Amino acid sequence: MTGSLPLALTMGEPAGIGGEIALAAWLRRRPDGPRFVLIDDPARLDSLIHRLGLSVPLRIVASPAEANACFAEALPVLPHPVPVAVAPGQPDPANAGAVAGAIERAVRLAEQGAVAGIVTNPIHKAVMQRGGFAFPGHTEFLAALTGTPAGTEVMMLACPALRVVPVTIHVALRAAISQLTTEAIVTAGRVAARGLQRDFGLAAPRLAVAGLNPHAGEEGAMGHEDQEIVAPAVAQLRAEGIDAFGPLPSDTLFHAAARATYDLALCMYHDQALIPLKTLGFDQGVNITLGLPVVRTSPDHGTAFALAGRFQADPGSLIAALETAAAMARRRAAFDRSFSDV
Amino acid sequence: MTGSLPLALTMGEPAGIGGEIALAAWLRRRPDGPRFVLIDDPARLDSLIHRLGLSVPLRIVASPAEANACFAEALPVLPHPVPVAVAPGQPDPANAGAVAGAIERAVRLAEQGAVAGIVTNPIHKAVMQRGGFAFPGHTEFLAALTGTPAGTEVMMLACPALRVVPVTIHVALRAAISQLTTEAIVTAGRVAARGLQRDFGLAAPRLAVAGLNPHAGEEGAMGHEDQEIVAPAVAQLRAEGIDAFGPLPSDTLFHAAARATYDLALCMYHDQALIPLKTLGFDQGVNITLGLPVVRTSPDHGTAFALAGRFQADPGSLIAALETAAAMARRRAAFDRSFSDV
Repeated sequence: MTGSLPLALTMGEPAGIGGEIALAAWLRRRPDGPRFVLIDDPARLDSLIHRLGLSVPLRIVASPAEANACFAEALPVLPHPVPVAVAPGQPDPANAGAVAGAIERAVRLAEQGAVAGIVTNPIHKAVMQRGGFAFPGHTEFLAALTGTPAGTEVMMLACPALRVVPVTIHVALRAAISQLTTEAIVTAGRVAARGLQRDFGLAAPRLAVAGLNPHAGEEGAMGHEDQEIVAPAVAQLRAEGIDAFGPLPSDTLFHAAARATYDLALCMYHDQALIPLKTLGFDQGVNITLGLPVVRTSPDHGTAFALAGRFQADPGSLIAALETAAAMARRRAAFDRSFSDV
Repeated sequence: MTGSLPLALTMGEPAGIGGEIALAAWLRRRPDGPRFVLIDDPARLDSLIHRLGLSVPLRIVASPAEANACFAEALPVLPHPVPVAVAPGQPDPANAGAVAGAIERAVRLAEQGAVAGIVTNPIHKAVMQRGGFAFPGHTEFLAALTGTPAGTEVMMLACPALRVVPVTIHVALRAAISQLTTEAIVTAGRVAARGLQRDFGLAAPRLAVAGLNPHAGEEGAMGHEDQEIVAPAVAQLRAEGIDAFGPLPSDTLFHAAARATYDLALCMYHDQALIPLKTLGFDQGVNITLGLPVVRTSPDHGTAFALAGRFQADPGSLIAALETAAAMARRRAAFDRSFSDV
């Protein structure tokens, strides 16, 4: 029955574009598209609808189960009030607790099997941290909420042309090099391979592992990390039966013919992963957390305060995140069923 | 008259694909396309033509001036023998001197105004260095041959969708970060802007300067180099009247809407420049050296020993390099004329 459950969509930063792209995603709903219940403040949504001159009927629901029946006619909302009414683009850290609370509520609903998965609207790290939020971002918070061992939650970014996992993320490039370890690459590769099997229907996912240095170091001529750190990780993944290969020069890894040879590129640093992803799939990117007990995706953009309140933000990435989460939940249910049948 | 001069095309590594892509480029010649004279060993070209079963008549010429008249009917060759006949894919360092000599000959012809510019076939660095070649690559050799001050020759890579200049090149990523200086960025930006004006017909070229760190460092949250090294370089370039802006997050710098805002992306390291270039324009990339007294381009690929002798290598990048060099020479002549008229 998981396939027929709605998704939970969190409010995200209420001064950002989350609310309006959620409204836009509902306005663009298709009969066979994903259904979702928004965990948000009905009063602030009413105000936003009025401000934008939209025609979006809200339906207050008491549980996700009520969402499916009404979704065609009204946007279902699980009420989750914020303490401070904020104008678009004018965040207030006093709302941080409510913003985090909506995420926790979504996680609990997913753990209870009341929603198929969760999709999170963007939060603003600095605003959240000023409001007392103790995590670097969504991913770490979700890991903590679900008891996922630190470092085994893995961020994958996907667009129609490409899937990437950056092994190191939001740190200075110099720090990313220093922090890169064989163990971190192996963990990321292992979690990613498992996620592609369970949630993406790939029986034997192919992982292209990018080298850190230009030309993957050219046998040590341009740095030794590729031989000393990356290559042993590839060997370890292969020893575990995962079809990983590399380290490969990253500049020739992302044209169409190269992309046809793998299902995922495992990248060593943020921009090595994000440059090709956003070059090929800007406005279509989806952020997916693998390794969690619950399905979770998000749009691949931020709160966009400068755009908020204008109904100009492109809901494409959120819609892709909803569709991806729904597809992941269906495949995960089928995968888990096929194993429980054995 | 420069516009009507042929280009000089160097032999490159004779065991690589240079010869066969030169033959392919001649076979695909167009009446209004660029004409070139190949500086190569006629005996080895004969052997290659025979091996590949091609129909390419060679015309031995004594000077580039003879090339234009025959180009429609035969491939003009300025004889430049190699000491060792090599099979495709089997290089011999004993040829390094002759390979370098062909490059020097091309440069001297360009300096004398006998050719419009030079296009270099790929050489193999390790083979050349074993043969006594004392330079890291073409670019540094060309700078030395022409007396260009070290560091003021600038490598630009271009495809139809994008132009990039990497400020640091063939070094380990860790070393690239350590070597990055405000001065190097300013020099690269200044030479690139001048080159785009003189050789590409852009009166006021727009230079997007990429940040080093993810999100261009997010105001110091992820590394201080963007504030301390990159931003001052942008300020200096602007103070010199160059329309440079940044540092910009590199992941959002290469999608179509972003590319429409600049003429060149100035990148901090090899893969930051080469990933988007090869993702967007694989097989169409051209390597251009700016800052030299002579026009010089090359295909954006290597000797491809594994492909050599099969006539399977795509000549697209070499053809693009020939067309780019011809266009640069025309624009440079017009630019220099317009200034000498003042």
